Amino acid sequence: MTNAMSVARDHVAAHEEAIIRELRDLLALPNVASNPDDIRRNADAIVQMFARRGISARIIETPGAPVNVYAELAAPGATRTLLFYAHFDGQPVEPLDAWVTAPFTPTLRSGRFEDNAPIIPWERARYPLADDARIYARSSSDDKAPIVAMLAAIDAMRAANIPLSANLKFFLEGEEEAGSGHLAQSLDLHRDLLASDLWLFGDGPIDPRGLPRVSLGARGIATFRLTTYGPATSLHSGHYGNVAPNPAARLAHLIASMRADDGRITINGFSADPPSQRSRALAREGFDTEGMLSGPAIAETEAGLSYGESIMRPALNVTQLTYGGAGPQRNAIDSQASAGFDIRLTPGITPQRARELIEAHVRNQGYTLVDAPPTLEQRRSISYLARLEFGELGYASAASDLTNPAVRRIVDIARAATHDEVRIAPLMGGSLPIAPIGEVLNTPFVIVPIVNADNNQHAPNENLRMREFRQGVQFYAAFLAEGGNGW
Amino acid sequence: MTNAMSVARDHVAAHEEAIIRELRDLLALPNVASNPDDIRRNADAIVQMFARRGISARIIETPGAPVNVYAELAAPGATRTLLFYAHFDGQPVEPLDAWVTAPFTPTLRSGRFEDNAPIIPWERARYPLADDARIYARSSSDDKAPIVAMLAAIDAMRAANIPLSANLKFFLEGEEEAGSGHLAQSLDLHRDLLASDLWLFGDGPIDPRGLPRVSLGARGIATFRLTTYGPATSLHSGHYGNVAPNPAARLAHLIASMRADDGRITINGFSADPPSQRSRALAREGFDTEGMLSGPAIAETEAGLSYGESIMRPALNVTQLTYGGAGPQRNAIDSQASAGFDIRLTPGITPQRARELIEAHVRNQGYTLVDAPPTLEQRRSISYLARLEFGELGYASAASDLTNPAVRRIVDIARAATHDEVRIAPLMGGSLPIAPIGEVLNTPFVIVPIVNADNNQHAPNENLRMREFRQGVQFYAAFLAEGGNGW
Repeated sequence: MTNAMSVARDHVAAHEEAIIRELRDLLALPNVASNPDDIRRNADAIVQMFARRGISARIIETPGAPVNVYAELAAPGATRTLLFYAHFDGQPVEPLDAWVTAPFTPTLRSGRFEDNAPIIPWERARYPLADDARIYARSSSDDKAPIVAMLAAIDAMRAANIPLSANLKFFLEGEEEAGSGHLAQSLDLHRDLLASDLWLFGDGPIDPRGLPRVSLGARGIATFRLTTYGPATSLHSGHYGNVAPNPAARLAHLIASMRADDGRITINGFSADPPSQRSRALAREGFDTEGMLSGPAIAETEAGLSYGESIMRPALNVTQLTYGGAGPQRNAIDSQASAGFDIRLTPGITPQRARELIEAHVRNQGYTLVDAPPTLEQRRSISYLARLEFGELGYASAASDLTNPAVRRIVDIARAATHDEVRIAPLMGGSLPIAPIGEVLNTPFVIVPIVNADNNQHAPNENLRMREFRQGVQFYAAFLAEGGNGW
Repeated sequence: MTNAMSVARDHVAAHEEAIIRELRDLLALPNVASNPDDIRRNADAIVQMFARRGISARIIETPGAPVNVYAELAAPGATRTLLFYAHFDGQPVEPLDAWVTAPFTPTLRSGRFEDNAPIIPWERARYPLADDARIYARSSSDDKAPIVAMLAAIDAMRAANIPLSANLKFFLEGEEEAGSGHLAQSLDLHRDLLASDLWLFGDGPIDPRGLPRVSLGARGIATFRLTTYGPATSLHSGHYGNVAPNPAARLAHLIASMRADDGRITINGFSADPPSQRSRALAREGFDTEGMLSGPAIAETEAGLSYGESIMRPALNVTQLTYGGAGPQRNAIDSQASAGFDIRLTPGITPQRARELIEAHVRNQGYTLVDAPPTLEQRRSISYLARLEFGELGYASAASDLTNPAVRRIVDIARAATHDEVRIAPLMGGSLPIAPIGEVLNTPFVIVPIVNADNNQHAPNENLRMREFRQGVQFYAAFLAEGGNGW
């Protein structure tokens, strides 16, 4: 444990009631991303949290978007600038009746509610709280705790007179759970303000095994629907079998032409950047393959690789098949079949490029693409008709390169701070709309999550466990003390 | 027009009121196949219809089955025996409120009810009825009219002292619309009684263009469901894309491995008897390809063949796809995907053989077949799991060979009787459970429908048009006069 980490540990031990009080107050503010007034109230409260510490902070506006918060803290003599990112908006709380306690009434329990751990009334709480104690509230983990943890780490450093190794900037987003639709625009509008050497993302959970984690990127995403067409009306499969085109069989052939059973995408021309040997090795070690497979009873990954290597590949996921109704099987050939897809992109291929390749691929299979259900005239004159509909949201994968000195410095600090327990994920399987940081600001980033993996993120009964929160404050202190030097 | 045909025409003209009276009385008896008492009442009435003519008839019983009617009429000097088949049971009448007039209250209209043709009260009907007049009732076409038409043809021949060319037998079934589940057993039990040289099937509609039709067979059918398995629970497609097997993509590959877009079945080892050149030529001429394709707006058949040639191929029809729910597309990998199929069989392959080949084929693709949803243990230890469930009902294709002298004789008579207008269908696309006639009795058959194609068979507002009914009596008379000689 570094000096900064012990200082942070001791600071939290001495001031935990106040730190938790600050978190509770923030969690009591409803923050569903779709309510701009609530988002502004949260932003105001966060600006006040900085102001109480004498750190310059303000709301920054982007036309048509929910507000964000900007703050900065100069470190005398520092040559590097680190930018800390978190978001203060939250997922919707529906279904509300699935919450055991109200989502915006932070509630302390001695453990998991699923294990019948009792509620501890706040006035009877004893500090320091137990390691297994949990605070239940929307955004307790995702993503207000990292904000409070980072401020606690700064408080600890200042109280012990340990200098910050870098100038600090903060960009706290109010639209993340709504898809960050204005993020690129915000970054572009405030690009001078947000100039830095590295973004530190405080978001997401740590490794399910309880090990600390640093992630260097996430897959991107595009969604689409593919529809194939048969006869204009549902027909008797005896009188019309082999006569009317079978849209479901055609759809199956198209799907089979697009991906192999080992997950390989076989769309003509589709290729992503191959990961380096170093990244593959990190990915192999970065995740608990056995743990990830055993819960959902998966015999092996699609290509027989480790979990981490599997998610470094682009994935074409079929998410829905629709044909012939949901009732009993009828002996009929229906007029259309459709499949829903999402495609998880890795570095080297954008959603736009993926879309072009998918459209070209379907055309290459002999299909004429229509942009509405085909007319009778089209059906009568064209044998192979298909429709592709792409979803609005879609963003590229973004990943920082391990050879970047700032990134390597953060990884080295994390390794030393955790006695090599930290798991480095070159890419996460899910998607985050973080590509604009590289695309707009040309800045590398690393994701340094601190919250427990079983936090019910995005679901009812979201919670934060104290053990991970405390370790998180120490982890952040280590980056503050050393992240800005040595590179 | 042959002598027998003009005699039949004149007889109907002179006695149409009595003939229609006999049909009305029979149609007034409810005959839904699932009600054995109703079926017996119909059988009793039909036995009486024969008895009134001095033709020996009786109910024949098969254990556990609805009753059938048997009758016979010897022709002095005849060496051949023709057996006439029809069925007197009917399809269910639900939805009852879709019937414009009650299904068991035979109702006369001057034309189609869809064209607002008025009802003609029976007491005001003028005989002969107009060619376009229609009688609305369940089984008016399917399949009581052929029984009444055949008896009218016999009456006409007898009244004019034209000898029957063959001994006649009748097998009138009471379970056809319920799937003929006991037909093979009935034929086996009464095989001596039912011995004949040829079965004449009076069932089904004529060509939609209004041309007479003789059909020599029908495709068989087997139904099944194929299910593939992914993770035990629905998983996030980002965190698990390329990790969890995608059951929908696997299902698509299996479907694509089983049939080509041109309809060719590519199941390992699957082969049916190739049709002869002669049959193909007949099939090409036997159906109105353009008419069959234009209604449902089909650009071309799956293999670009004529309608008739298309249905001489076995067809693997996908009839349902089920995966990922019916609501909005979610970004998830679900635990199973399934497809419904029917397979329309042609001569040379039985449902049992098809089933064996399908099972072997899925195994050959690397799958382990389970006969229930897989356990967690199976999911954890076996990568490729699938389930095949076959439907109970299934029967082979049956088709008579044009080189058979009895069959050829019927075709020749039909040609001469219609000045070559008749259309010969070597095989019909739909399925009829007629294979037992060949399998149990080793007897050839031909299908000689007489009713209008737009009769709403199996649907509400079933009807019979007078033009076709009258022509049917003549058509049957031609077979009675000449079917038993000349071969």
